[in-house]
Amino acid sequence: MYRSHNCGELRASLINTEVTLSGWVQKSRDKGFIIWIDLRDRYGVTQLVFDEERTPKAIFNQAENLGREFVIQVRGTVIERASKNPNLPTGDIEVLVKELTILNTSLLPPFTIEDQTDGGDELRMKYRYLDIRRNPVKNNLIFRHKVAQAVRNYLSSKDFIEVETPYLIKSTPEGARDFVVPSRMNEGQFYALPQSPQTFKQLLMVGGMDKYFQIVKCFRDEDLRADRQPEFTQIDCEMAFVEQEDILDTFEGLTRHLLKEINDVEIAKFPRMTFDDAMRLYGNDKPDIRFGMQFGELNEVAQHKDFNVFNAAELVVGIAIPGGNSLTRKEIDQLTDWVKRPQIGALGMVYVRCNDDGSYKSSVDKFYDETDLKQWAEITKAKTGDLICVLSGNTNKVRAQLSTLRMEMATRLGLRKPNEFAPLWVVDFPLLEWDEDTKRFHAMHHPFTSPKPGQLELLDTNPADVKANAYDLVLNGNEIGGGSIRIHDKATQAIMLKHLGFTDEQAKAQFGFLMDAFEFGAPPHGGIAFGLDRLVAILGGQETIRDFIAFPKNNSGRDVMIDAPAPLDDEQLKELHLKLNV
Amino acid sequence: MYRSHNCGELRASLINTEVTLSGWVQKSRDKGFIIWIDLRDRYGVTQLVFDEERTPKAIFNQAENLGREFVIQVRGTVIERASKNPNLPTGDIEVLVKELTILNTSLLPPFTIEDQTDGGDELRMKYRYLDIRRNPVKNNLIFRHKVAQAVRNYLSSKDFIEVETPYLIKSTPEGARDFVVPSRMNEGQFYALPQSPQTFKQLLMVGGMDKYFQIVKCFRDEDLRADRQPEFTQIDCEMAFVEQEDILDTFEGLTRHLLKEINDVEIAKFPRMTFDDAMRLYGNDKPDIRFGMQFGELNEVAQHKDFNVFNAAELVVGIAIPGGNSLTRKEIDQLTDWVKRPQIGALGMVYVRCNDDGSYKSSVDKFYDETDLKQWAEITKAKTGDLICVLSGNTNKVRAQLSTLRMEMATRLGLRKPNEFAPLWVVDFPLLEWDEDTKRFHAMHHPFTSPKPGQLELLDTNPADVKANAYDLVLNGNEIGGGSIRIHDKATQAIMLKHLGFTDEQAKAQFGFLMDAFEFGAPPHGGIAFGLDRLVAILGGQETIRDFIAFPKNNSGRDVMIDAPAPLDDEQLKELHLKLNV
Repeated sequence: MYRSHNCGELRASLINTEVTLSGWVQKSRDKGFIIWIDLRDRYGVTQLVFDEERTPKAIFNQAENLGREFVIQVRGTVIERASKNPNLPTGDIEVLVKELTILNTSLLPPFTIEDQTDGGDELRMKYRYLDIRRNPVKNNLIFRHKVAQAVRNYLSSKDFIEVETPYLIKSTPEGARDFVVPSRMNEGQFYALPQSPQTFKQLLMVGGMDKYFQIVKCFRDEDLRADRQPEFTQIDCEMAFVEQEDILDTFEGLTRHLLKEINDVEIAKFPRMTFDDAMRLYGNDKPDIRFGMQFGELNEVAQHKDFNVFNAAELVVGIAIPGGNSLTRKEIDQLTDWVKRPQIGALGMVYVRCNDDGSYKSSVDKFYDETDLKQWAEITKAKTGDLICVLSGNTNKVRAQLSTLRMEMATRLGLRKPNEFAPLWVVDFPLLEWDEDTKRFHAMHHPFTSPKPGQLELLDTNPADVKANAYDLVLNGNEIGGGSIRIHDKATQAIMLKHLGFTDEQAKAQFGFLMDAFEFGAPPHGGIAFGLDRLVAILGGQETIRDFIAFPKNNSGRDVMIDAPAPLDDEQLKELHLKLNV
Repeated sequence: MYRSHNCGELRASLINTEVTLSGWVQKSRDKGFIIWIDLRDRYGVTQLVFDEERTPKAIFNQAENLGREFVIQVRGTVIERASKNPNLPTGDIEVLVKELTILNTSLLPPFTIEDQTDGGDELRMKYRYLDIRRNPVKNNLIFRHKVAQAVRNYLSSKDFIEVETPYLIKSTPEGARDFVVPSRMNEGQFYALPQSPQTFKQLLMVGGMDKYFQIVKCFRDEDLRADRQPEFTQIDCEMAFVEQEDILDTFEGLTRHLLKEINDVEIAKFPRMTFDDAMRLYGNDKPDIRFGMQFGELNEVAQHKDFNVFNAAELVVGIAIPGGNSLTRKEIDQLTDWVKRPQIGALGMVYVRCNDDGSYKSSVDKFYDETDLKQWAEITKAKTGDLICVLSGNTNKVRAQLSTLRMEMATRLGLRKPNEFAPLWVVDFPLLEWDEDTKRFHAMHHPFTSPKPGQLELLDTNPADVKANAYDLVLNGNEIGGGSIRIHDKATQAIMLKHLGFTDEQAKAQFGFLMDAFEFGAPPHGGIAFGLDRLVAILGGQETIRDFIAFPKNNSGRDVMIDAPAPLDDEQLKELHLKLNV
């Protein structure tokens, strides 16, 4: 038996008890006649003491030579500490060591195993197993487990069944790129790894499974943007005999449960907002509503003068930055430069100072008088002491730019509090989205999303106006879940695929099995999928998903610890009926 | 709202309540003036009634035309049934329908959606979504969910953390073939799908994670034997600071908990048996101990006469078949033919009848007298009325043959009761196994398994004799879990890999990251992995794992429902830097 207790549980009540502990040498203080060692395991740190008088000499000598991260086992007696450490749960006691076994030695770690480490990202990824010893990473992984358990237990208590769907499925050219898996037994053929279990969960609904969920790995072969992973985890859910309202209720319940159980935050009813309103008020379909700074559209009160920049713009829109009038002219100029950076791409920024005496001072005083500016202030809800920032141009672009500015200012002003939670349902998404590259409409959600009742006909005349039974759950400015009510009849699905540019043959080859299934009594159904990595990060009050993944990949999709991917043997390639084409 | 209740919950207490139900038309009985329809959903069946007098005419007419598996929604009143059905939980009531909506029609299903279906395997796989509507399949999937939930909750309650390890990892030529995934972003390089998270869970132990588990898909590109799947699910577990005894205790606890929670069977302490004893007594490393028929080794009492078949044999071994003396001469001859089939390969079978009068009659009376046969009976524990069957030849072969006979006879005699559970730990496995094909030793478990203390040196002189800290958990003659205490120091791991035929360069390229990790304070650790598919099937009292998998693949590794694998676009191949070599 390697231990009678762990390193986090000894308390004053156990003084004089004989204990056995195992763990890592966190640090050692050698005063010559006395040595203290912090022994660490997953559960905490316990101070060991070796002293010349009470410790056998051989053990004392051994203790002098223990290096950082050595793995040791000790037997000893719990004694009261002379100077207690109130910051440590075990701080009232220490263990006077009688026996010491070195279970393993350690080279000097390439970075310090401390909460604040000196290791850079690359190094920490290469030695991820050492990084996991650090409390922040270890605690994130334990936190993730707790969230996943809470999800499973909640959904199970609501009669949901977790069903495992296959990983070796079929490639579909729609959507992002698939990772594929050559088949040795089926020459020249490939499986694909699922981007989501979408079609399988729909088939489970056709199969009468009624309430399904799965916490499942999904795969997407995309060029990786920051904080995207080629493999990611979804909480995938589907229900039959439901309308949108049933789904929103059910998964609002789940999210409310998580906020209560994990974060001890009670939220009564989640607000809802249409996609159109979200775009109009926040320039974004996943608005962070922990703070205000709603957009004010200024076309009517800004296009009646001779300022051509505004007159030529499709949209003139502003936000009031709380207390922003305290910014110096130089700081405002820097802000203007910031929104003009190519990543954001604004052409310029107009500002209005809301002075303490109730007057206004703008960068366009040449064109607009106090009456105009007062109207701008009313529309943007600017108060005395605020700064109104106004952008103009193409509607979609200018909304995105102003949204970025809004988020940046909120961050600078400390309005994005990690322990405050503001969920929001965004509903009534458009069914289709125009893609400039391919010059055709794509499914905004996916090809299985149903249009709002009665809007199917609009597909021929005004495709961009068709709304879908689709919804996103937004938390603190992040989309944590998204879903839709699905099409459940073959005819509608065929129309939809046609509008997405599939020929009949392509539709049949790709989705024939699903459309066939719809002919055998498919029930109405819908669902939602949550991104677990993101959800866990946000509930944990952080933004970087990589910190919540045990073994993440870098931005080139590489695992630098195991050095994958890697070349294959020629023999292996041959068995797979493949040649490299490099 | 599609339903106020499900089809399994209405009871007499709800008579006169107005309800809304949705589901599938299971069957319909039309008496002209009255129509009964069985409405089915996941939760059960409720009888609907439409009658000429009480049902609106339009609804009645609609009801006449409902086909099997149509999806309908009805509103109506719960009424008492005239003739109750005590076999149905809802059998006291029926619903008098007032409103009927057809939610979807259905073609005639290719097989009947009944507990006993007329559909063959191929057809049921192609239309798996219809097969899942059948109670046996549906209940298996729900059962699987319950087992997985029980596992997660038990292990979580014991401080285990579920950590997700990556799916896109690195190919290793050791063990079975990997499925590989070409990398688009890393030209000419491939990921592999994990055969198990073995190295990652060991790295988590190095990382201090201490108690890890994961219910996880694993992949093996093998030629599929019956009831093997290319993707399968493991309950993968690992612990640090443990000895074999700690692991056996912990996972005996888990298995005991499952048997109690899932099967309501209480088992106090699991018996243990060494690998050597299992082979000697049952000819098998996964003996079914629900019944006796232990092997009796007869060399000493059968090689002293002139029977050359026995005298030339490495092993003469028999079992006593309870009540087997009732077999006719013809039946015994058929049994002899059965063991001589090429699949089993015995050269012949000697038998001894244990007569009611205490005398013996054997097929080798020419060579052996009553005194000899009495000794055989003692050694095989044969009683009056039994039949002793004796095989002889090469030890390994003859043990396998007799084990097959033992299992066959137990099945014929009804001794393999599906609701009886007999777990068994098999311990002290050999470290290495001789492979005739490659003419070298392979790791019996895997290359990370540690030899028993003090036996490392034997590797050079008597490699076949080295025992490992390895163990299997056997349930009813099936291996449901297996594991080992791992090597946790670089030097031992290097010796082990050398003995398995790895050059230093190969060892470094394949497992360098693990051996490096061992240099930074790796704790002693070990673990176990359970095959969830098999475990669930056995707990469910069945043997076929395919019946417990939602969407299984056939013996060619194909998903016949979605028709995967499938060819790829040329474009896709090009992006992956690949050409077909067919």
